[in-house]
Amino acid sequence: MKSNMINAAIIIIGNEILSGRTDDVNLQFLAQRLNRLGIRLEEARIVLDSESKIVEAVNALREQVNYVFTTGGIGPTHDDITSSAIAAAFGVGYELHPEAESILREYYKKKPLTQARLKMAKLPVGAKLLYNPISKAPGFRVENVFVLPGVPGILRAMFDNFSHELVGGQPVLSGSVSTDLGEGTIGDGLAAIQSKFNEVEIGSYPFFKDGKFGTSLVARHTNEKKIGIVVDAFQKLILSHGGNLLN
Amino acid sequence: MKSNMINAAIIIIGNEILSGRTDDVNLQFLAQRLNRLGIRLEEARIVLDSESKIVEAVNALREQVNYVFTTGGIGPTHDDITSSAIAAAFGVGYELHPEAESILREYYKKKPLTQARLKMAKLPVGAKLLYNPISKAPGFRVENVFVLPGVPGILRAMFDNFSHELVGGQPVLSGSVSTDLGEGTIGDGLAAIQSKFNEVEIGSYPFFKDGKFGTSLVARHTNEKKIGIVVDAFQKLILSHGGNLLN
Repeated sequence: MKSNMINAAIIIIGNEILSGRTDDVNLQFLAQRLNRLGIRLEEARIVLDSESKIVEAVNALREQVNYVFTTGGIGPTHDDITSSAIAAAFGVGYELHPEAESILREYYKKKPLTQARLKMAKLPVGAKLLYNPISKAPGFRVENVFVLPGVPGILRAMFDNFSHELVGGQPVLSGSVSTDLGEGTIGDGLAAIQSKFNEVEIGSYPFFKDGKFGTSLVARHTNEKKIGIVVDAFQKLILSHGGNLLN
Repeated sequence: MKSNMINAAIIIIGNEILSGRTDDVNLQFLAQRLNRLGIRLEEARIVLDSESKIVEAVNALREQVNYVFTTGGIGPTHDDITSSAIAAAFGVGYELHPEAESILREYYKKKPLTQARLKMAKLPVGAKLLYNPISKAPGFRVENVFVLPGVPGILRAMFDNFSHELVGGQPVLSGSVSTDLGEGTIGDGLAAIQSKFNEVEIGSYPFFKDGKFGTSLVARHTNEKKIGIVVDAFQKLILSHGGNLLN
């Protein structure tokens, strides 16, 4: 079931994220870029380097959303199994892609094209390349699934290289106010504001800084004027409870 | 289907993570703590503040793993819907929990106990409290599902307060070596090491720093001796290709 809005999901592939060794930074990058393109990120999953787990996540999510982005597992080593898992998810072959092979042969002219390197040219049959401006080994797309590397610098360059091909919607804008009041003080009033402006997505985010609690209120909508009206209501609510506006 | 190893999944609940507004830091904390306890984190999902999405994720994962941890959405505001969603997932009522209510009445003796604050005492029927040493509003547990707050400082204090109740396994240890060689150079040799020591989980993680690529090789197993043997093999592989050992 796809909603009216253009939407997406992300699958982060890698044991190193789930063991706590590596802190993922790709989710926030992609989330912000998609938001700017008017594409709503509906869900993200982080899965092990396991073919069955990757296949399960890809096949569940590609039916639910317009775009799926995977990160990680397309390098040259034995633990990079994303490309063959994507082939399995789509039930297609996993073979040397002629264009990917020639890109790698050109790039590695002066170095041995090891079996490990050549593996980066083995892709699901029918894959369309996503070019890599940095280290050449390409990502690829099969239908609505975009397969990206895990190294953040390369992922970013690759995404910015193809993102004009994505069909987005109206970007969701946001406005926010922070206060030194706790959520419990303004929660009832905030619920009333949400009821009055039910088309605007209103979020309340507590923070804890320098030993003190505070709250950030955020309004999200595609219409800037509506956001302004709701932000005004946030400010009145805070002042009516004797709070300070922090921004 | 639960594997022989004690395992877990995490569900991060919050529109603010998926919009890119907030960078999640709870996943890595929990991943590292669970790893230390010998509990394998199998999967993480990040879902919207949507009852149906929360119910779907909780009910899918609580059957698959020993422990599920959710983060976020148990505060006092209208967008905090995790507690009622957990009640829906288990098909139980959602009511004022007497002990939680008295904790909050005690904590807010000098402040009004607003409807918003009282909402933090509404829990699924049968929930067991997880105490909050910082701001008192408790998390809770229903069967194998642990419901934690999103504010990192509170989540950490709460987790460390109950984690002795978790039944873990043998902690997975790791050893690693980094080199200035690329993955493509050592990938074939690394695959041979993995074949020889197939009981050890071997990961290869490329990095890109100061304009140069490098690779970290990681061996993970419960037996320190086996890790040492594999790390020796990593070092020999790197040196045989003329690489430098970076740690």
